[in-house]
Amino acid sequence: MDQVVIVGGGFAGLAAARRLSEEPVEVVVVDQHNFHTFQPLLYQVATAGLGSADVAYPIRTIFRRARHVRFVHGRVSGFDLSAHSVLLENGQELPYDHLIVASGATAATFDVPGVVEHALFLYTLDDARWVRNQVLAALERADAAASEETLAPVIVVVGGGPTGVETAGAMAELVDIAIRHDRLRLDPDRTRVVLLDGQQRLLPSFSPTASAYAERILRARGVEVRLGLGVESVSTAGVTLAGGELVMARVVLWAAGVTVDGTVAADLMGRRGPGGRVMVERDLSLPDHPEVFVVGDAAAVPGPDGTGPDGAAPGAGRLQPGDTRRSLPQLAQVAIQSGDHAARQVVRRLESRPTTSFAYRDKGVMATIGRRSAVAQLAGGTVFYGTIGWIAWLALHLIYLIGFRNRIVVLINWAWHYFRWPSGPRLILGDVPARPPAASRPGRIGCPECRR
Amino acid sequence: MDQVVIVGGGFAGLAAARRLSEEPVEVVVVDQHNFHTFQPLLYQVATAGLGSADVAYPIRTIFRRARHVRFVHGRVSGFDLSAHSVLLENGQELPYDHLIVASGATAATFDVPGVVEHALFLYTLDDARWVRNQVLAALERADAAASEETLAPVIVVVGGGPTGVETAGAMAELVDIAIRHDRLRLDPDRTRVVLLDGQQRLLPSFSPTASAYAERILRARGVEVRLGLGVESVSTAGVTLAGGELVMARVVLWAAGVTVDGTVAADLMGRRGPGGRVMVERDLSLPDHPEVFVVGDAAAVPGPDGTGPDGAAPGAGRLQPGDTRRSLPQLAQVAIQSGDHAARQVVRRLESRPTTSFAYRDKGVMATIGRRSAVAQLAGGTVFYGTIGWIAWLALHLIYLIGFRNRIVVLINWAWHYFRWPSGPRLILGDVPARPPAASRPGRIGCPECRR
Repeated sequence: MDQVVIVGGGFAGLAAARRLSEEPVEVVVVDQHNFHTFQPLLYQVATAGLGSADVAYPIRTIFRRARHVRFVHGRVSGFDLSAHSVLLENGQELPYDHLIVASGATAATFDVPGVVEHALFLYTLDDARWVRNQVLAALERADAAASEETLAPVIVVVGGGPTGVETAGAMAELVDIAIRHDRLRLDPDRTRVVLLDGQQRLLPSFSPTASAYAERILRARGVEVRLGLGVESVSTAGVTLAGGELVMARVVLWAAGVTVDGTVAADLMGRRGPGGRVMVERDLSLPDHPEVFVVGDAAAVPGPDGTGPDGAAPGAGRLQPGDTRRSLPQLAQVAIQSGDHAARQVVRRLESRPTTSFAYRDKGVMATIGRRSAVAQLAGGTVFYGTIGWIAWLALHLIYLIGFRNRIVVLINWAWHYFRWPSGPRLILGDVPARPPAASRPGRIGCPECRR
Repeated sequence: MDQVVIVGGGFAGLAAARRLSEEPVEVVVVDQHNFHTFQPLLYQVATAGLGSADVAYPIRTIFRRARHVRFVHGRVSGFDLSAHSVLLENGQELPYDHLIVASGATAATFDVPGVVEHALFLYTLDDARWVRNQVLAALERADAAASEETLAPVIVVVGGGPTGVETAGAMAELVDIAIRHDRLRLDPDRTRVVLLDGQQRLLPSFSPTASAYAERILRARGVEVRLGLGVESVSTAGVTLAGGELVMARVVLWAAGVTVDGTVAADLMGRRGPGGRVMVERDLSLPDHPEVFVVGDAAAVPGPDGTGPDGAAPGAGRLQPGDTRRSLPQLAQVAIQSGDHAARQVVRRLESRPTTSFAYRDKGVMATIGRRSAVAQLAGGTVFYGTIGWIAWLALHLIYLIGFRNRIVVLINWAWHYFRWPSGPRLILGDVPARPPAASRPGRIGCPECRR
């Protein structure tokens, strides 16, 4: 039987493996983590709303009944496209007949000085746990030092996309719990959550009305929203804005954007498109390598002509580097659909049938802004706000959350969170050094799938 | 109002704080962790049966309604008994009118070479998470390396007490899940769980019948029980026995016993009794310091004359160093009752009434041996085995598990564990270095309450 290697156990990789699990192929899923991370809820782990185990599920358990799916726990160090083999850091090589690269994205620092050294990220479960530790420890330090505290426990979130908005909203609630419920002796005026973005509105991928709603809700919850401000540098003191102003901060969360780890793109013949993503054909295969598919956040997935979610322009054919207009945004839906599509193309190749172009079915976008508020924007343009949007968001995430047990536990956590207001595992686990560990820093990423 | 400082947020410290929360005193609970750890279930975190958040509960949340109870997040570096002040590592000092030291115990290495460097422990939540990471990573490495693997993934547990027995039983189940359920390519003959103890029977604090039962069940579950064997040293290769035999092992879990961190005892006037514990008067106060009480695992809590659980001898009066016969074992029940007693003595002192001697109400001991089996030995001597013992064990632990939300989640995990056999968060979180971090090593304990 042909061997299909799938790099990455994120949404795209799992979708591909699921589709192939019933087909006459040997599937090997390789990931540096032995679990799938439900990324849309990482911000809840970072803000102590959920425990780590609630948003992670062992990959082996997911495929426990799929006899032809094997899991390999390891870091990918590169690809040998001519030899048809994936190279692992431990020296192992995984030969393949068909390769699906779903290695995901990593934080984009945009070469802003100090980001790698002083900012925290939110792309892996380890990242999320570090953010939680850092924030809770900062609040405890402020409580212990009381008035003497020189640097106020200010939390700055950089980036007004869904991740930034959801995290800032939840952080504001966490601070509120700390003061009103946990009775930490914090000065509400000096304990702030600031959301920074260079653009003029939040959630640019949503409608202007939705953006305005998100901003209004965040402000109502005490988040200091500051737009149209570029970040010049990040230091131990905080964030320095383009104008030179220093926003003092104990914790700086960098959610400004993502890119693709250089080594992947390099090995994949250096065809990098918008956002450092790998350029692919319309069937998601690598140019000149029909046996290799790149999907999910790692790929510049082509959008349908003229109707792309990000306003695509007419004209078919291969995407050209820099052509951001016709590539789809890096969303879970795009990852799932593209992973599934690649798997189906592998089947077609096995059956010696021609491959087909990827067609994205837009299911809309949604973002939650803390408790009881969310914006859910459907493909048609319809937008749900507030509680209804929140329930829609909650239902959708529960449906997609892998593992029945996880679903129950998460539902309980949420119900609890909703009815008995202050809850959540506000635990400071492990030692909390001044900076996060190398493992969770983009400058130190040793493998493509680190971020899935 | 008088200020009562309680060092440690474990069973003893919480029991004392609870009792004092309604009294006219200012209570300060200090702990290096911002959460209470439900230690009896740590082995389930270590064996991937429960998530970290299931066995930990924020101390601030526990006392959210107790206006006179304040939490301080910090490490205790020492005590100034003459100045009536507790010293913290961050330089802070906590003045007290009454002091309750519930700083717990730490792993006793008995100066066996290599234990500090190469063994893992199971006294803090961080310890448990490290054990889980190390064991799961060892199994994954063995799967990846397949036959080439030189050192088989053998897990050696040293210590036949409740901790060792419960952990070994759960480890055997974890290995079974890994092979049969997660389909790791492991050689069942080379993947073993070994339980070592120097004595001739397991669970020495139980009846011989109970000990025999535990051994039978463990063997039935595939645990290699080896008794009457002293450990000479621990190395990267494994455990070297007194006879010189080397038991090769990937992971060595040291559950051979506990002692009290030297610095506490030293500051508490160096009155160290059996197991390095602090000698106390019959009212649990420190000799010559009626305003200082030492309780829980840190103290050599006097047992009732002649009827102590460990066969106490007649004769009242202060315990003499080395007199192990009349001090109670380091059990959760002893911790809870002694903490509560100390708190009540503080109240009596406030009311200028004489203090009373501590009287232990023996509620029996229990240990679970994996799924569906446990031994519950009541004070009267009655012993429950198997499922009934297991249900008794489960019920008791659920009752004592702090936090309603935690109870539900843990109950679900257990129900799941019971009905849908293989479950549990088998997640390898964080980077897994060859050795555990300094924070979880006894040789590096900087504070007494580290181990609570």
